[in-house]
Amino acid sequence: MVKKILKFGGTSVGGIKRIQHVANIIKKEYNSGNQIIAVVSAMSGKTNELIDFSKKISDDFDKREMDVLLSTGEQISCALLAGALIKLGINARSWLNWQIPILTNGQHTNARIVNMNTSKINSFLNNGVAIIPGFQGISENGDITTLGRGGSDASAVAFAKLFEADACEIYTDVDGVYSTDPNKIPVAKKIEKISFDEMLELSSLGAKVMQSSAVQTAMMYDIPLEVRSTFTDRNGTKIFEHQNIDYSKSVTGVAYSKDDAKITLIGVEDRPGVAANIFEPLNKSQINVDMVIQNISSDSKTTDITFTIKRIDLSKTTEILKNNQKIKYKDISCNDKVSKVSIVGAGMVSTPGVTFRMFKALAEESINIIAISTSEIKLSVIIDEENTLKAVKKLHTIFDLD
Amino acid sequence: MVKKILKFGGTSVGGIKRIQHVANIIKKEYNSGNQIIAVVSAMSGKTNELIDFSKKISDDFDKREMDVLLSTGEQISCALLAGALIKLGINARSWLNWQIPILTNGQHTNARIVNMNTSKINSFLNNGVAIIPGFQGISENGDITTLGRGGSDASAVAFAKLFEADACEIYTDVDGVYSTDPNKIPVAKKIEKISFDEMLELSSLGAKVMQSSAVQTAMMYDIPLEVRSTFTDRNGTKIFEHQNIDYSKSVTGVAYSKDDAKITLIGVEDRPGVAANIFEPLNKSQINVDMVIQNISSDSKTTDITFTIKRIDLSKTTEILKNNQKIKYKDISCNDKVSKVSIVGAGMVSTPGVTFRMFKALAEESINIIAISTSEIKLSVIIDEENTLKAVKKLHTIFDLD
Repeated sequence: MVKKILKFGGTSVGGIKRIQHVANIIKKEYNSGNQIIAVVSAMSGKTNELIDFSKKISDDFDKREMDVLLSTGEQISCALLAGALIKLGINARSWLNWQIPILTNGQHTNARIVNMNTSKINSFLNNGVAIIPGFQGISENGDITTLGRGGSDASAVAFAKLFEADACEIYTDVDGVYSTDPNKIPVAKKIEKISFDEMLELSSLGAKVMQSSAVQTAMMYDIPLEVRSTFTDRNGTKIFEHQNIDYSKSVTGVAYSKDDAKITLIGVEDRPGVAANIFEPLNKSQINVDMVIQNISSDSKTTDITFTIKRIDLSKTTEILKNNQKIKYKDISCNDKVSKVSIVGAGMVSTPGVTFRMFKALAEESINIIAISTSEIKLSVIIDEENTLKAVKKLHTIFDLD
Repeated sequence: MVKKILKFGGTSVGGIKRIQHVANIIKKEYNSGNQIIAVVSAMSGKTNELIDFSKKISDDFDKREMDVLLSTGEQISCALLAGALIKLGINARSWLNWQIPILTNGQHTNARIVNMNTSKINSFLNNGVAIIPGFQGISENGDITTLGRGGSDASAVAFAKLFEADACEIYTDVDGVYSTDPNKIPVAKKIEKISFDEMLELSSLGAKVMQSSAVQTAMMYDIPLEVRSTFTDRNGTKIFEHQNIDYSKSVTGVAYSKDDAKITLIGVEDRPGVAANIFEPLNKSQINVDMVIQNISSDSKTTDITFTIKRIDLSKTTEILKNNQKIKYKDISCNDKVSKVSIVGAGMVSTPGVTFRMFKALAEESINIIAISTSEIKLSVIIDEENTLKAVKKLHTIFDLD
């Protein structure tokens, strides 16, 4: 007998007809002889509605009560899905965070699941389908806690581990991970199998599909995942360890980010601790720094440091840099119309010439590279934003992804 | 120090501005040195929204899951109200049904509160305001249970008893109980003080104000209530035991019901058990019989039995009577355009001539009385429906209520 965690996202349960459809998916799996634990998100829109309520009261709404508020969203989905299954003649029941209980650590609105009592549900699985709310648990002192946005994915992975499930399937509104954005590049192809770290590096594509920290957890505990669409019967994308994947292609996908800005500090004093001095105040102001590249400057006593941030943070960032007494530099250069294009692939390590082929391809399109950053399975370049789609299309073609 | 239960109904918390207003009421009470337990309903409309969801899945939605579903309504109100109080600088927190816990007996969707752990909340009350969801609890085996429609009033009264509160104030969208319907009879006056049993007899007026079974519970345990408006500063109506009320008037209020129908069984065999034989099948079919009057018939071996029901049940009722093999009668007479007008007053018992004055007043208005029924504190007549408001106005005047 196979024990499966099936997780259904907000759009998958975003209406009564959809909940009934999900009930039919579960019924089919259950009647095939599987043990089923369904993990559900709040109906799409519900969480935002509740957040809007809280914002009308306070921008700094009490976090303990925020968790009490938000957790109702998944509770509603649980009850409706259980009711829909019962209507189909399947024995099903909702198990609420405190009824199990699901134990969490950490802060309100940002907790993580550390343990849960699995015995009652394991007994129940022989006779019925268990429906569990994602995104939530209770703290040591019995308060409701939530896991933060997208936390239902984290719940599903944690449950897969704690229940020692044989499969963890993430049902969502896309049918898998694509080799690039299918909305912009029509030749994009669904990836059948991908490794955890590729999935993480493709986060700009994968973020629409699954929450990164849930993928990290799955990687840590080696829990194979499958991402698939609630709305089609097609296979989704399987996410595995490297060694289980046979790489026929060097590059798995082409990702890109938009709304980036690039800052270069020219002629920075080259001494230990200077990078920390630059980035600490940015971190304090919750500015998310993405790529960081350091070059030796023309004069060998100084260095140039380039990094990228979200465009929206640009003026705040330059202000912080200019007011930073701890750092010295000759000049600051900004470009607020850049994008990052990355090729990702666990097969890159063993394939010579990938870097060269990428640069050559961009040169053929007369695309200037502003900065380069590489890791074992990813190669990113910063280019002018207007060239983004042209670059992505070209790279998608030359790496045989079309 | 005075310990108060303050209960806020669905319209009182039916939006963020209203919740903030309720928070201000509570803040004032708390800053006056009172210990405050606030009991809240779901935001108006929320419960219906959830019921609509369930109905789209099944008309016979699983009752256990219905309770899981519906209980979220009050949980949302609790969190928002606690957040609003915290924003006002008041220490407050929500206490959910399972966190307390509130223990119930009985069936899903129709449970009743039997006990609760008061110690944790009692300790908390020295430092803050406790917010508790109305309408719900948990069963012995840890399932969420709800108390049925209007159950938040029942919660408030149960909490008043279990916490040994000094006061139980029901905040709602009307400012008290009126001597008759103020929407139809503009001279209607708010009643300052009323006894539990008068309140129950005036249920056709009081039902808009407070749930009858909650009043019964308050009467049973002698818990004084006050019904008042969330939206004005005016005093409401205090509901007490008889002995605490000084009756200057014989009649407290004039109630009337609409949409009634009258059935008379003429010439019913007069033997023991006949009434049971008539009403048992009606009860089984969930037909609510209101007044029952039995007269000796012209021929002394038979009797005439008159009773009233809701007009909507008339055809079903006559069908059941005609198919009832256990009873014999000569004829059946129906009138589907009648109403019941009642004068209610604990002072009636000690005031001679109330009955006579009522009949005389109706005669002066040429209103024919179809049937009469009396109790210690209530006198009801069945009249033609078209005369209802004329009768109510006349009685309101002659008993000095204008």
